[in-house]
Amino acid sequence: MTPFGSAVRFVLFVNGLLLLVLATAMVVPMLVDLGMANADWWAFAGSAGVCSFIGAALALSCRGLSDRLNARAGYLLTVSAWVLVSLFGSLPLYFSSLGLTFTDAYFETMSALTTTGSTVLSGLDDMAPGLLLWRSLMQWIGGVGIVVMAMMLLPMLRVGGMQLFRTESSDISGKPVARVVHMAALTVMVYVGLSVLCAIGYDLAGMGSFDAINHAMATIATGGYSTKDASMGYFNSVPIEIVGIVFMAAGALPLIFYAHLFTKGSRAFFQERQVVVFLGVLTGAVLLMTAWNVDANHMPLWHALRVSAFNVTSVLTDTGFATTDFGAWGSFATGLFFMLMIIGGCAGSTAGGIKIFRWQILWGGLVRQLRQMVRPNQILLTRYAGHAVDDQTILGVRNFFFIYMMTLLVLSVAVMATGPDFLSAITLVAQGMANAGPGLGTLGGPSGNFEALSDPTKWVLIGAMLLGRLELMTVYVLFIAEYWRD
Amino acid sequence: MTPFGSAVRFVLFVNGLLLLVLATAMVVPMLVDLGMANADWWAFAGSAGVCSFIGAALALSCRGLSDRLNARAGYLLTVSAWVLVSLFGSLPLYFSSLGLTFTDAYFETMSALTTTGSTVLSGLDDMAPGLLLWRSLMQWIGGVGIVVMAMMLLPMLRVGGMQLFRTESSDISGKPVARVVHMAALTVMVYVGLSVLCAIGYDLAGMGSFDAINHAMATIATGGYSTKDASMGYFNSVPIEIVGIVFMAAGALPLIFYAHLFTKGSRAFFQERQVVVFLGVLTGAVLLMTAWNVDANHMPLWHALRVSAFNVTSVLTDTGFATTDFGAWGSFATGLFFMLMIIGGCAGSTAGGIKIFRWQILWGGLVRQLRQMVRPNQILLTRYAGHAVDDQTILGVRNFFFIYMMTLLVLSVAVMATGPDFLSAITLVAQGMANAGPGLGTLGGPSGNFEALSDPTKWVLIGAMLLGRLELMTVYVLFIAEYWRD
Ligand SMILES: [K+]
Ligand SMILES: [K+]
Repeated sequence: MTPFGSAVRFVLFVNGLLLLVLATAMVVPMLVDLGMANADWWAFAGSAGVCSFIGAALALSCRGLSDRLNARAGYLLTVSAWVLVSLFGSLPLYFSSLGLTFTDAYFETMSALTTTGSTVLSGLDDMAPGLLLWRSLMQWIGGVGIVVMAMMLLPMLRVGGMQLFRTESSDISGKPVARVVHMAALTVMVYVGLSVLCAIGYDLAGMGSFDAINHAMATIATGGYSTKDASMGYFNSVPIEIVGIVFMAAGALPLIFYAHLFTKGSRAFFQERQVVVFLGVLTGAVLLMTAWNVDANHMPLWHALRVSAFNVTSVLTDTGFATTDFGAWGSFATGLFFMLMIIGGCAGSTAGGIKIFRWQILWGGLVRQLRQMVRPNQILLTRYAGHAVDDQTILGVRNFFFIYMMTLLVLSVAVMATGPDFLSAITLVAQGMANAGPGLGTLGGPSGNFEALSDPTKWVLIGAMLLGRLELMTVYVLFIAEYWRD
Repeated sequence: MTPFGSAVRFVLFVNGLLLLVLATAMVVPMLVDLGMANADWWAFAGSAGVCSFIGAALALSCRGLSDRLNARAGYLLTVSAWVLVSLFGSLPLYFSSLGLTFTDAYFETMSALTTTGSTVLSGLDDMAPGLLLWRSLMQWIGGVGIVVMAMMLLPMLRVGGMQLFRTESSDISGKPVARVVHMAALTVMVYVGLSVLCAIGYDLAGMGSFDAINHAMATIATGGYSTKDASMGYFNSVPIEIVGIVFMAAGALPLIFYAHLFTKGSRAFFQERQVVVFLGVLTGAVLLMTAWNVDANHMPLWHALRVSAFNVTSVLTDTGFATTDFGAWGSFATGLFFMLMIIGGCAGSTAGGIKIFRWQILWGGLVRQLRQMVRPNQILLTRYAGHAVDDQTILGVRNFFFIYMMTLLVLSVAVMATGPDFLSAITLVAQGMANAGPGLGTLGGPSGNFEALSDPTKWVLIGAMLLGRLELMTVYVLFIAEYWRD
């Protein structure tokens, strides 16, 4: 067997394990529906059966060839995991009483697992609890999944400047494998801890337990699926919105930052430079939007601050909750939301977008280039968290920006070819790639829904979500001939 | 005097010379208006007087300090030349019988000199010939001005990967200064030759001499100012449109390419790799748009081909003539036009946009990065015209792309704050930065006009035209503190 052949077997083995995890997760909504005597329990039971059977078959037949994971297998593992888990995760939706088409079921599942949160479903307020829980659960699993993957795989793969985080774990002693496992365990612990805190917060703020649990999972995952058609606007509650703001922002910070905060205190802010910049951008954007809402939309100051704080946090963290139709705030607000959406949260969090550390590198590199233009013979460095950033990382980040914008433009034109207008198309694709949730046009806007889009549009958006979530290059590398040559 | 102080004097000296050239150019429309007994002749006479007085004062008072031009002085020279010449070039419009505001006069002039071609004027069909000629003349001068500047200064300045063209002139023997002068002379000769051919072409196609001369200047400069409110649509003539297509494309090819074609034959195509790619993009875009117009807009094939060929060529070359309101072709066409607009023509031509060679470097660098992801230990090169492109050039081009897209987004949001909707704002700024001419929204669209925009919007667009024409970094470098420190 060729080395690549054995790597493919390893990929299938891991996918088998993931399907077994998925099958286990399906048991939770099954039990809830069974307890409520809801007929959809069999959709979960049947799907869990299919997942465990195929998962076990893959895991057992490909077991034993423990090849060391190389870069090539890493890409395939990442992409196949998201495509396959979405496929099997969509089975309960497809088999349920909702009567969804395959396209809609797959769209909803990919949207959940990539923590995008664009939904084709309506009538959420009266929906069976098992299905609501399944949507939240998939967002929650997808959220921690991407963080663990970004931590374990991407730095090795040197995708889009992620190599910057390769040495981040150097303070944890031990062998590489032990270190990675330790980091992953720490991450999951922090994630679970934040989710519990968030659920308690929502509950105390008066949300009710079931909604609190669902919204907590969707908040920490910066996913944005709600149990209400009107999203967070349904509750119309300041305390709930404050809990939402705090934990959406918490979900957009690197999970490892909390561990560092605990072990290192305020030095963690220096090591995680993204955090300070992210909080600064958030504050600035909230103030700017508040001023705009007071000035142009004639809102009273406190109301303007309230709706701006919540919806700006929701868009910048790419969560996608809404408390109002902010598409009606005028074109400046739309433009600002568009920029916040693609700025995104911190690397190592569940948030989407281009991510804060890349903006720091891009900005630092730009200033360096301008200085170099004035003093051509001086050697200048771009720094990040006290270390000089090498040219290869800067090249990688700039390449990422290029391919991000080109993907955005090309997919937008593709969506336009399927019908939607310019604004709807470009914001639909931008929200998909940023895993944000709502678009900003008349189609799929903040108060809207993705049901009405045509199937071709939905498939382009499925591609956009996958590409954005897996940092683009991870997917594109599978499309070059060299990848498949031994 | 500090070295920088003496550089500033040199910049003032060159600006003085440029104002003298401008004053001389003003004599042409003055004579035309005088010959036609049109009262606007005194606006040209007065402006010419002011220009020659200030030009002579600057040239004489700063003469004699022939400092060798360094990079720092180069940026200041470039930016100040475009700002000042636009200021003095706007005087005839401001003093004329049109009764323009200063904002409108400056907008029209900056639009002309940057070969953008966005106009605030209407009633062109009945306008005095002197004013029409002045608009065309400024486009023509601005067109050759940018090519000569891009050839002489930008490679030295290493702006946005332009260093790639530094060795282009290595086949011309002699001292550096002699070589640059030789290249500039060759460029101007080619430019004049193409303009004469184009005017003859339009004349033979039935346009009438005055319109032929004006449109020829606007075509070779890829400027797009017409003498008719309905632009090229006024003539409704296939021969005229064919001449237009040929010479718009000719204007978007590097001017030095024609010289190479003459001295080296088909080897010139290899040396100017941009040409083949540009013609390929043009052909592909025309075919795609034709197919769309047949399929979605139900046009007969020949009509679809006719309107697609002309308007696609006009947008890709950033000329901005229109034969029909292509804003009504649907959102896919709008999206495609948007992409073509920012793709742009070849470096070393009068065309705008990001420019073909940068796309080649960006694409080549992307493919290299993807290959490197599969084979991390292999050393791979990006090639351009047979030579390996060094990492610094790739970094420069990628940085240019970043700052281009960020400028586009930030200025678009600024325009949105002044009123226009999302599509109008983003396409207005994109056309300004690409020096294209028409936007694609309801405001300033292909059939529209910029008169109705507010003054703040116009000033943002003036900034966009200047930034785009001077390759952004040339302008931004003046905004860092290091530039002004000795
Ligand atoms: K989301
Ligand atoms: K133009």
